[in-house]
Amino acid sequence: MTMHAVGSSTPLDEPSKIAEIIVPTMGAEALSTVLTNGATAELLLGAGAQDDCAAFRLEGSHVLVTGSDYVRGPKFSLYEKGFLTNYDIGWYLAGANISDVAAMGAIPLGLLSVVRYPKDLPDSDFTELMEGIRDGARAVGALNVGGDIGSAERIILSASAFGVVEPAGLLTRTGAREGQLLCVTGPTGLAGSAMKLANNGEDVARDEYSALLGKWRRVSPRVAHGRIFAGNPGVTSCIDTSDGLKGAVEALAHASEVSIVVEEGRLPIADSVRRAADRLSCDVLDLVFGDSVDFELVATVDPAAVDAVSEQCGAAGLDLDVIGRVEAGQGVGLRRGAVTTDVPGASWRHT
Amino acid sequence: MTMHAVGSSTPLDEPSKIAEIIVPTMGAEALSTVLTNGATAELLLGAGAQDDCAAFRLEGSHVLVTGSDYVRGPKFSLYEKGFLTNYDIGWYLAGANISDVAAMGAIPLGLLSVVRYPKDLPDSDFTELMEGIRDGARAVGALNVGGDIGSAERIILSASAFGVVEPAGLLTRTGAREGQLLCVTGPTGLAGSAMKLANNGEDVARDEYSALLGKWRRVSPRVAHGRIFAGNPGVTSCIDTSDGLKGAVEALAHASEVSIVVEEGRLPIADSVRRAADRLSCDVLDLVFGDSVDFELVATVDPAAVDAVSEQCGAAGLDLDVIGRVEAGQGVGLRRGAVTTDVPGASWRHT
Repeated sequence: MTMHAVGSSTPLDEPSKIAEIIVPTMGAEALSTVLTNGATAELLLGAGAQDDCAAFRLEGSHVLVTGSDYVRGPKFSLYEKGFLTNYDIGWYLAGANISDVAAMGAIPLGLLSVVRYPKDLPDSDFTELMEGIRDGARAVGALNVGGDIGSAERIILSASAFGVVEPAGLLTRTGAREGQLLCVTGPTGLAGSAMKLANNGEDVARDEYSALLGKWRRVSPRVAHGRIFAGNPGVTSCIDTSDGLKGAVEALAHASEVSIVVEEGRLPIADSVRRAADRLSCDVLDLVFGDSVDFELVATVDPAAVDAVSEQCGAAGLDLDVIGRVEAGQGVGLRRGAVTTDVPGASWRHT
Repeated sequence: MTMHAVGSSTPLDEPSKIAEIIVPTMGAEALSTVLTNGATAELLLGAGAQDDCAAFRLEGSHVLVTGSDYVRGPKFSLYEKGFLTNYDIGWYLAGANISDVAAMGAIPLGLLSVVRYPKDLPDSDFTELMEGIRDGARAVGALNVGGDIGSAERIILSASAFGVVEPAGLLTRTGAREGQLLCVTGPTGLAGSAMKLANNGEDVARDEYSALLGKWRRVSPRVAHGRIFAGNPGVTSCIDTSDGLKGAVEALAHASEVSIVVEEGRLPIADSVRRAADRLSCDVLDLVFGDSVDFELVATVDPAAVDAVSEQCGAAGLDLDVIGRVEAGQGVGLRRGAVTTDVPGASWRHT
């Protein structure tokens, strides 16, 4: 299938876009997955089939998980400011949606993408966006299997991701238990720091900010961590940090009806976030806990299991930090030496 | 959970909307399904769980089907003209998405809805929209299990629907075979007639147009037909008429690499469409074949199976009309007496 019209000055109409851009950029490769319980999932009809639906054959005992995230187009200020390309926001759409699947302990299978675009969007831009979605999904072994495209007065991006997990491995927000340890899969606050710096007029495309902007440009959903968590019965709850670390810990504590205390001294803090705090003249913990779409996972682990889980992560080259403890009671707190205070930072508000 | 703030002059913020409107209007009832091969599907985490994803437990041998449709908000001219309420477009969103699942022969399980709204949208309007989605899904036994809500500069509606079917029952667009009969589950052109009349300045809210406008207001995806088709090995291809009857027949013929000939004298034509053609001074076949989101199914059936399938439909109170035949060759045609002509009408263009 040729892409001859891509980059031409007159954007293709929709049927041509489907044939010449969508199908080639959705990733038509085969996909099959085996769960640890022997259950299998295999792609039957992907984007290339152009049928009413995509289809997967599932044999055995699965939990199917599925969720949707909408990405704000014109409100996506880093894109509007030129710090993110069409490829980047396509990848972001895939990664943000797959992160929800990872947080359930599941293997992501696929993505349905809804991409609406202004009629004058050059085909080259549209192609880059679709390639970003494809590559963001592919990076964790998933495929963009279909969805909806068509025109709108501006770019609108939405998707649904789905995956499968062994029934015994499903991780929810309600499983945190008193006495467990709280773990996080990586430092937080990087994405939020990039946003705050850009809003402050900084050129976050500069090399010194690459670790921060990189969180937006190449969302890396923690599928590998999720699979280790799902395979260990001592891990009993999980959530992603798409609403920031404070938001994640609050949601876990609320859903599980427990208290969670984070220890200041155990928090992984990236040097890039410390420098951002200096530049922004704010408390670094405001960045670490605040509104930041780092897409890390937060999980609670039985003390007896934490060494095994840490070793499995380490052997796979994956970070894992114990940052706190689940206690009786309600709410969240931050232990600073002998004192427990409120957790700083603002959770992301869905507005 | 009280709904005290609904209808107040200041719309709720998003967290309150989730607690007070979303969860109650998403349908939190249990859901479990058994396929004819003994495979089961059961809801584990629905909207009420407010987890990262919804989750279903699947045991046995399933094909999972899933698709997405975006509904054009401000471009939805019947809504803008006041002929459709917020409840109606919510129902439409559910029905249009579930129709794709029905076209695969599957039992719809659930829906993920993406609802973005202007900040000044009254909560009562928002609630009606969510209730429409819920009721449209419920009408065919499915649930709205989650998704994404938040603000945008205008109403944006998108969804993904998913369902399960026995592996032997999956219906695609590629299965049509020479010698089969072409069947349709009901008359077409009603929805398109309503749109054309409204664009012509007619008040389509009048009683005489209720059959036409009703196609928009209460989309009725042909799940029951799809299940009968899936259960009969003589039915080998299926598609919905969301792009109009001409579009559906063309897509089947193209995907299956066959020719399909429709017989004029066998087409079911609703009286309301005949009256619309008179009013619009156009050929009734332009309406029957043209751009019209009636969400009927078109299927191809072996001659030896058609009586059994018809009887099953009849026993269930469902319409089924044989309207043509699959032949060797390529393309589609309309047989009018001894002459075969091009099929009239315009397919829906994705623009």
